[in-house]
Amino acid sequence: MSPAESLVRAEIAEQPAAVERVLADASGAIARAAAEIRRREPRYAVIAARGSSDNAARYAQHVLGRLCGLPVALATPSLHTVYDAALRYTDGVVLGISQSGASPDVVAVLEAARAQGCITIAITNDAGSPMAATATHVIDLQAGIEASVAATKTYTTSLAAVAALAAAAAADASRRRELTGVPDALARQLERTEGIAAAVEATSAWQLLAVVGRGANYATAFEAALKIKELTGVAAEPASPADFLHGPVAMLDRGFPVLAVLAAEPAGAAMRDVLAAAQSRGADVTVIGGSNRSPEPGNRHLGVEPGPEWLSPLTAVIPAQLLAVGAAERRGLDADRPLGLQKVTRTV
Amino acid sequence: MSPAESLVRAEIAEQPAAVERVLADASGAIARAAAEIRRREPRYAVIAARGSSDNAARYAQHVLGRLCGLPVALATPSLHTVYDAALRYTDGVVLGISQSGASPDVVAVLEAARAQGCITIAITNDAGSPMAATATHVIDLQAGIEASVAATKTYTTSLAAVAALAAAAAADASRRRELTGVPDALARQLERTEGIAAAVEATSAWQLLAVVGRGANYATAFEAALKIKELTGVAAEPASPADFLHGPVAMLDRGFPVLAVLAAEPAGAAMRDVLAAAQSRGADVTVIGGSNRSPEPGNRHLGVEPGPEWLSPLTAVIPAQLLAVGAAERRGLDADRPLGLQKVTRTV
Repeated sequence: MSPAESLVRAEIAEQPAAVERVLADASGAIARAAAEIRRREPRYAVIAARGSSDNAARYAQHVLGRLCGLPVALATPSLHTVYDAALRYTDGVVLGISQSGASPDVVAVLEAARAQGCITIAITNDAGSPMAATATHVIDLQAGIEASVAATKTYTTSLAAVAALAAAAAADASRRRELTGVPDALARQLERTEGIAAAVEATSAWQLLAVVGRGANYATAFEAALKIKELTGVAAEPASPADFLHGPVAMLDRGFPVLAVLAAEPAGAAMRDVLAAAQSRGADVTVIGGSNRSPEPGNRHLGVEPGPEWLSPLTAVIPAQLLAVGAAERRGLDADRPLGLQKVTRTV
Repeated sequence: MSPAESLVRAEIAEQPAAVERVLADASGAIARAAAEIRRREPRYAVIAARGSSDNAARYAQHVLGRLCGLPVALATPSLHTVYDAALRYTDGVVLGISQSGASPDVVAVLEAARAQGCITIAITNDAGSPMAATATHVIDLQAGIEASVAATKTYTTSLAAVAALAAAAAADASRRRELTGVPDALARQLERTEGIAAAVEATSAWQLLAVVGRGANYATAFEAALKIKELTGVAAEPASPADFLHGPVAMLDRGFPVLAVLAAEPAGAAMRDVLAAAQSRGADVTVIGGSNRSPEPGNRHLGVEPGPEWLSPLTAVIPAQLLAVGAAERRGLDADRPLGLQKVTRTV
């Protein structure tokens, strides 16, 4: 199978249509969930998720805080499944995000919340899943079957659902209008291949990788790192600029690779300082976003479509997806069957 | 300076006395904060912290959930400092954990919460700090000056403060009694050097490292990884067993090093499955806790004092601290001045 025919590349290409579909078809469910949020005025949100969906939860943490003023806790399912703790979700809204809707620990959090009469919302690609059956509101991603192991279209459709839910709960008509531009922006983003070939070339030297992002794109840094880990086995570690300075910075040395997401202001300012420091120490910095214009820090740049900053995680993740797939192909790996699974098969 | 004289080793050795001191001297502040929590019945908690204190916050997330039923959000300070978002902390209790109490982004979260009339609690080693001035309740760690860059005694005293606060807020007399045994347990733990020399020997091969922990010791995995990163530059990546299976597992190969925290049941069961899988794939597994008795998984074990599982993060982190310091010394590094700082000095 040639790289161009891989399932994951096909699924990446489906993202504009998939996001357009979820924004249209799930709009009723999103409006009903948002109406219950506005009526009951929850004090906080709890989100249960794993893997890529946990990165969508990181975006939800940002956007529900920014648009709706809600503090957001990422759930600790082990309190339910291992410790049988009596968590009280009083006055909370509890969301589960899971492509399959089948993860028992995520379902356990929603079950506890539902039993306590909380607002419960399931964001899933399987409306017939146990998680969907547990929640009051079901936002069906309708992304179609995702056959490759690395999640791509279910990630961006989850982000779109979260963004639409936050804008609706905030009754923010201006942001809701901005959302309608996302499918076209994603289509244009897929055409923006400038810089990708040079960046893929640079990945051949990657063994360790620091990935940095802030604000709205903190989630993008985590998702980029996860795709790279899953698809190539490179030890990609995500961090905020503050966390980066608390630890990973110790690993920096001449040629150490850094991948940074620098989509737009206002988070861009804090990022530039970190990137300039990294580059001055000889790190090899690949930037998603920014520009090649001096004095922008970075050894190479992957273009990101301009647009509202709060929605930039939808576009900015696409260069990261393409970079991860390109890096896997360059290493002679099958991008549809990441290393971990092959290795499980090898051992008995 | 010989390894035995390093500041960080001296500070590690001070931990039993420091924890005994905070449990005694901060008991009044802890009782007052707990009384306000019981009286006002917050719906959730928000914790702002960075670095090692963020790992103490991970323990607080576990223990406030387990003992008090509170969902706990780890704050996203960038919403305040970068986006100027209007977070509402209504009906919440907001904690800041910071050794210095000087981190502006942590202070920003507490300022917003205090202005809204929330319960605010500062856990800090500097009672004269901006963070202490912002909070209603100040839990002074009184750990003395921490001169080495890697936090050790301020981490364990923060855990002790958090555990005492949770037990008091839950009005759990039995757990409060269990807490009084911690200083002696820490002293015994410092004497338990079995396995350390062999484990330090194995660290010489480390370049990448996966660190795994669950439940109460999820925080310990993060803190162990941070100490190892700070002190040795090894790319140590922490994960829960679930997250480990979502990504880092792809990196596993013959000889790949894994450090696991397996302090006690009930979290131990889930951990054993992951460790057995890792070992069957040829990974080199160092276990904090567990035993050398067959069929316990792991290539080597560092002993952890028996005791109540909810308090095991206090004892279990000590072998991790000693391992990180030993690994740094074995590499010829100065354990008091981690790599990152030296490198900042080198570049202009």
